[in-house]
Amino acid sequence: MEARVFKPESYLIENEPYYEPIGAEIEIFEAAYHNQLPVLLKGPTGCGKTRFMEHIAWRLKRPLITVSCHDDLTASDLVGRFLISGGNTVWVDGPLARAVRHGGICYLDEIVEARKDTTVVIHPLADDRRVLPIEKLGELLVGPPEFCLAMSYNPGYQSVLKDLKQSTRQRFVALEFDYPAPDLEAKIVHNETGIEGGISEKLVKFAQMTRNLKGNGLEEGASTRLLVHAAKLIMSGVNANIACRSAIAQALTDDDEMLAAIYELSASLF
Amino acid sequence: MEARVFKPESYLIENEPYYEPIGAEIEIFEAAYHNQLPVLLKGPTGCGKTRFMEHIAWRLKRPLITVSCHDDLTASDLVGRFLISGGNTVWVDGPLARAVRHGGICYLDEIVEARKDTTVVIHPLADDRRVLPIEKLGELLVGPPEFCLAMSYNPGYQSVLKDLKQSTRQRFVALEFDYPAPDLEAKIVHNETGIEGGISEKLVKFAQMTRNLKGNGLEEGASTRLLVHAAKLIMSGVNANIACRSAIAQALTDDDEMLAAIYELSASLF
Amino acid sequence: MEARVFKPESYLIENEPYYEPIGAEIEIFEAAYHNQLPVLLKGPTGCGKTRFMEHIAWRLKRPLITVSCHDDLTASDLVGRFLISGGNTVWVDGPLARAVRHGGICYLDEIVEARKDTTVVIHPLADDRRVLPIEKLGELLVGPPEFCLAMSYNPGYQSVLKDLKQSTRQRFVALEFDYPAPDLEAKIVHNETGIEGGISEKLVKFAQMTRNLKGNGLEEGASTRLLVHAAKLIMSGVNANIACRSAIAQALTDDDEMLAAIYELSASLF
Amino acid sequence: MEARVFKPESYLIENEPYYEPIGAEIEIFEAAYHNQLPVLLKGPTGCGKTRFMEHIAWRLKRPLITVSCHDDLTASDLVGRFLISGGNTVWVDGPLARAVRHGGICYLDEIVEARKDTTVVIHPLADDRRVLPIEKLGELLVGPPEFCLAMSYNPGYQSVLKDLKQSTRQRFVALEFDYPAPDLEAKIVHNETGIEGGISEKLVKFAQMTRNLKGNGLEEGASTRLLVHAAKLIMSGVNANIACRSAIAQALTDDDEMLAAIYELSASLF
Amino acid sequence: MEARVFKPESYLIENEPYYEPIGAEIEIFEAAYHNQLPVLLKGPTGCGKTRFMEHIAWRLKRPLITVSCHDDLTASDLVGRFLISGGNTVWVDGPLARAVRHGGICYLDEIVEARKDTTVVIHPLADDRRVLPIEKLGELLVGPPEFCLAMSYNPGYQSVLKDLKQSTRQRFVALEFDYPAPDLEAKIVHNETGIEGGISEKLVKFAQMTRNLKGNGLEEGASTRLLVHAAKLIMSGVNANIACRSAIAQALTDDDEMLAAIYELSASLF
Amino acid sequence: MEARVFKPESYLIENEPYYEPIGAEIEIFEAAYHNQLPVLLKGPTGCGKTRFMEHIAWRLKRPLITVSCHDDLTASDLVGRFLISGGNTVWVDGPLARAVRHGGICYLDEIVEARKDTTVVIHPLADDRRVLPIEKLGELLVGPPEFCLAMSYNPGYQSVLKDLKQSTRQRFVALEFDYPAPDLEAKIVHNETGIEGGISEKLVKFAQMTRNLKGNGLEEGASTRLLVHAAKLIMSGVNANIACRSAIAQALTDDDEMLAAIYELSASLF
Repeated sequence: MEARVFKPESYLIENEPYYEPIGAEIEIFEAAYHNQLPVLLKGPTGCGKTRFMEHIAWRLKRPLITVSCHDDLTASDLVGRFLISGGNTVWVDGPLARAVRHGGICYLDEIVEARKDTTVVIHPLADDRRVLPIEKLGELLVGPPEFCLAMSYNPGYQSVLKDLKQSTRQRFVALEFDYPAPDLEAKIVHNETGIEGGISEKLVKFAQMTRNLKGNGLEEGASTRLLVHAAKLIMSGVNANIACRSAIAQALTDDDEMLAAIYELSASLF
Repeated sequence: MEARVFKPESYLIENEPYYEPIGAEIEIFEAAYHNQLPVLLKGPTGCGKTRFMEHIAWRLKRPLITVSCHDDLTASDLVGRFLISGGNTVWVDGPLARAVRHGGICYLDEIVEARKDTTVVIHPLADDRRVLPIEKLGELLVGPPEFCLAMSYNPGYQSVLKDLKQSTRQRFVALEFDYPAPDLEAKIVHNETGIEGGISEKLVKFAQMTRNLKGNGLEEGASTRLLVHAAKLIMSGVNANIACRSAIAQALTDDDEMLAAIYELSASLF
Repeated sequence: MEARVFKPESYLIENEPYYEPIGAEIEIFEAAYHNQLPVLLKGPTGCGKTRFMEHIAWRLKRPLITVSCHDDLTASDLVGRFLISGGNTVWVDGPLARAVRHGGICYLDEIVEARKDTTVVIHPLADDRRVLPIEKLGELLVGPPEFCLAMSYNPGYQSVLKDLKQSTRQRFVALEFDYPAPDLEAKIVHNETGIEGGISEKLVKFAQMTRNLKGNGLEEGASTRLLVHAAKLIMSGVNANIACRSAIAQALTDDDEMLAAIYELSASLF
Repeated sequence: MEARVFKPESYLIENEPYYEPIGAEIEIFEAAYHNQLPVLLKGPTGCGKTRFMEHIAWRLKRPLITVSCHDDLTASDLVGRFLISGGNTVWVDGPLARAVRHGGICYLDEIVEARKDTTVVIHPLADDRRVLPIEKLGELLVGPPEFCLAMSYNPGYQSVLKDLKQSTRQRFVALEFDYPAPDLEAKIVHNETGIEGGISEKLVKFAQMTRNLKGNGLEEGASTRLLVHAAKLIMSGVNANIACRSAIAQALTDDDEMLAAIYELSASLF
Repeated sequence: MEARVFKPESYLIENEPYYEPIGAEIEIFEAAYHNQLPVLLKGPTGCGKTRFMEHIAWRLKRPLITVSCHDDLTASDLVGRFLISGGNTVWVDGPLARAVRHGGICYLDEIVEARKDTTVVIHPLADDRRVLPIEKLGELLVGPPEFCLAMSYNPGYQSVLKDLKQSTRQRFVALEFDYPAPDLEAKIVHNETGIEGGISEKLVKFAQMTRNLKGNGLEEGASTRLLVHAAKLIMSGVNANIACRSAIAQALTDDDEMLAAIYELSASLF
Repeated sequence: MEARVFKPESYLIENEPYYEPIGAEIEIFEAAYHNQLPVLLKGPTGCGKTRFMEHIAWRLKRPLITVSCHDDLTASDLVGRFLISGGNTVWVDGPLARAVRHGGICYLDEIVEARKDTTVVIHPLADDRRVLPIEKLGELLVGPPEFCLAMSYNPGYQSVLKDLKQSTRQRFVALEFDYPAPDLEAKIVHNETGIEGGISEKLVKFAQMTRNLKGNGLEEGASTRLLVHAAKLIMSGVNANIACRSAIAQALTDDDEMLAAIYELSASLF
């Protein structure tokens, strides 16, 4: 009942993570990787960017070190800091320095959420210098060829305040992600949960209905992940309509009218 | 006269907390729990969300570690920090790491009050990775199946600034809570305080009158909790009208006209 | 000529603080106290809320630990922090933990001035759990029955930014305070200063005139406290008009026209 | 050529500071002091508030501990903090605690500049409790009768953001200061610098001209202090017009047209 | 697979970095260097400013210490700080002090992103005093003749908030950079990637088309760096149109219509 | 090739810094100094204020301790702080305390950039008390007669937010600086660079043309310093027009039309 504990740089993904490609994304990522170019993943929440990175890390046999970015993430959080131990200070690499030092893949999730100092700290790593200055150590780390920098964001959320600067963007090869085509999505829901095909198709149809509401009262439509949630509840014996309400509708919005409309959509299907 | 002191992870709730279900919430929570999906509780203040979590923790026989979220809650407050002891630094798990490590239920109350870094720190715990990176330790905790993440908020308070991001929401199974139906609410007030049925019914009627004023001068109507307060004062010998004023009316608003209107409502009942 | 020094939790008020009740406030507070419900005091500055709390603490024979809230009051200021001593860190309870641990009365003065994290830290103490999580110690304090939480604010100052959240308000039994009726107020001024009845009545009349100006150029009228100040200066031989100017008029406003009007009011009385 | 170094609480003013009273301010301050009431000094810059406090401190034979308030002054700056020395932490009283502990006069200059936590920390000292809670020590200091709290501000600068709260103001006896009458001001300039009467009168006339421009392009007129500056430069051999420009006109404003107008005023006098 | 680690002040560039001059920039930089004047580089992202600095550092045989500026870069980050080691504090030079002390070139990249304290800390280094006060050490460093200060920014991004103060600008000799002329740019792309001339010319033509869209929906056109990225992907076997999409179009914008327009441009060329 | 290192308080200027007076500034500064009055220097960037202070320091044979003010300069940065060394804390004077303690000249450059706490910390030093309270030491430093406080700012930049408070201004004798008259300026450029008179006169003419553009597209005209830069580049063999572009035009503005206009001006002269 206790948690298992790992060192991030030695946490290799052992089993192939299930991933269905939707275009040339695997080929382009591998070409960028071998040319030592950093990669930017764009796309809505829950469409598979994180799973893609796990799949790539498995293909390339490199540890994947993921950082969820946020407003308060400092450069020190990425690069590292001194900690006091036994009266001495001991340097502890942050996840970025850890990836550079051990030739891993550093994946900065939702990079536009980060403060400017985070995005700037990656600049010398994201051009052909591939160096990380660790000013507190007075050190320059030169990334080995195996080191790879990737980051993601959701262009739909981009505000003026949280825009990626051109001087950052123009260092990356960019991949666009979106929800899979209906057949593929139904297959994914089935593979992830074991639910029968008919229900997974209805769930995909339901998701598409909500995606059409995007911009008309919904900030975002249901992601593939939410379909998987609903399918799991159904597999556990929860009534399909109730599962759609809890796992999908209530997860999408708090607006009473919108909720009523979405409930009707699910009731028309199940 | 001294306080009793516990370790949160070993503070199991021994006696069944009194809880009256208002729908399928117990069934859905248990299905989500067994599928290792995180749960989001939505509803107004004082309607029983905290009591529900205590009831669930008792049913699942897991320790319940609650964090009241606020503006200044940092990721370190959740994850943990180093403290100096005897010249060495000692790591102290925050409540979230404590729950992950010991397979408890971590309940983040009023999550929308938290800063963005708090909401983001739970992302890798709230999808199928179920990992908590503790960057200061250079550790990855992988949550055991018993670990459960739950959080709550009141959609009525949601402002643009304090909105839950879609990338956060779309990781959770969501349960909607509301005030119980009148009969049930009167039964609850009676059970909690021992007050006679007639008075508890009047208190519920009074609460409903204030709830109708929501949006017409009142930010929120009287919660079930306030009815329990008033009933307790009455049981201690305070006049029913004075109890309604102190425990309900004055707790709801400072507006003189509104107070006068509410006093009239209570005077018409008692 | 040196200050006397006390531990807050052992500073019991020995002599009955002079307090004239204006309603059922003592009865309600005691009922709330015995039901372990927290209490909220509302009312303008200088009308006797602090004196009331001293009186209650004396009645209940509990230590009164007062915290003047402000913008920069952190949760740590209330709960406690580690200090380094002899190479080790020593935990020092903040005033709230001190009151919980020793079963005292914790009185948070002007709570709306506090940051949100302060108001949220009291939530688990202010419902039927009555627990204070001390996250830095990894401890849960369960308040003994003697522990009592009270807080005050002035509804007249409440701004949108500094509003008490419903989820906070709806945990408290609320008591409304106001200036005493004229006879009572004159009696209070006399009892506090020894000034003769005629002058204390004139001072009360003067105060009422300034209270009528509230909203018409004055933010607030003269409090009972200011009348006591003026009476003390007069008892020390200062001319009554000059005392009213310094102790009352100049303490109320800086506006030249307003001051001239108030000077005329005092000149018409003395 | 090295600075002399003192402990603030033992720095008694030995020689009577030259001060010309402009009203009953000395009498009122002494009455407030003996009634243990705090005092608030209001008035424009450079009109003698600081000198008055030095004079009062000399009269009362108490040390005067002055704090220049500003935006970033924290409660800890006033109350004190722990410092590490020889591996242990040592408490160092701030100026306020120092004055309470040793029965001195604490003078908070330009209090409205202070953050709210500064103004609130003085509340329990500024009513009849006269206590200073030092939360980091877990101590309550009870001020001896000799302790006195005074503060000043310039009502002309008061903005909405930097207003004194009524709950603060209504704890103080307030004294209003202004520039002295012409004869008195000329006498002061003469006494401070030794300049001949004819020139000091002209300087006062010049100052009055600039004071008439207040609100018509000048934020503030020339203070008595500036007249003393000009007189000192003249005594050192600087031409009177040039002295007026450097010591008065350029110190008042940067506006070229305003400066030309003021230069003409001084040229008409000297 | 491990990173190589260097001391910044001893990391001399050994091989001539490939750089094609576009004007007199090398001559002017060297004249400024020998007159001990600081230099400011202006120009759009990815046009070669960083490469120019590497080329200059190689020519002058001085170490190049680069700092990527950002909002949160403090003066201490530049100048240095004390770190605790073995119970003592040890001073660690920041990159600026490191460059002054060892006579290196300090290059502040995107200086307008820095906080004001960063730009001000360089003032005494950027005039004829050439000193760096290190206040925490109580030291003044006088820069040797070999020390050189350079900084860059992109005038296109300059906002009112992030403007270089005249008191900063007017200390620097300024060099303007821009994209190279088409022939030169095609030559650069060829030299950097080995791609055949025809394709590099088409890429330059494509870049120019995007540059014409600047201000008409694009914040910035494609930089030379992006052409190099696309050429590298093509050399790795990625289809030219797909390479243009990922390496150029998606790196420039997220706008769907803009992307469609740019895709058409690339389709017309490849 | 290594930097030379000094203690600021023992860094006396040995050789007379070249300075051409433009009015009575030397006489007034010396009169203020001997009357122990603080001095305020006003004027545009690069017109010689810093050089004037170096000249004055040389005349008065006092060390000159300069602080470049900025937004993030704290009171501690000026006054000093404790540092840990060998397990003990050691006090390190800031530049202001250093100047007071050793009777030096403290020059606060661009004082309006400083936070309010910086400007307020100098108040007791800038009136006839001439004391610096060091609250963390519990010490009062009384400045010796040799101590002198000076500060500068550029009135042209003064915004509402960054205005000097009257309570600060009205403590200083103020000196106004401006660009020297043409003949004098040409002489200065010649003396600083050795450039022949014809060219230095043309440079001055060019500077005046740009100064006429102030407010018509230029924020500020070319300072004397920029003329010296251009002359140095020309002396190093750079073409005069190119030197004017890099050292003057590009240092003044980024606006393309403005730059074209200024280039024409220089082309008409050289």
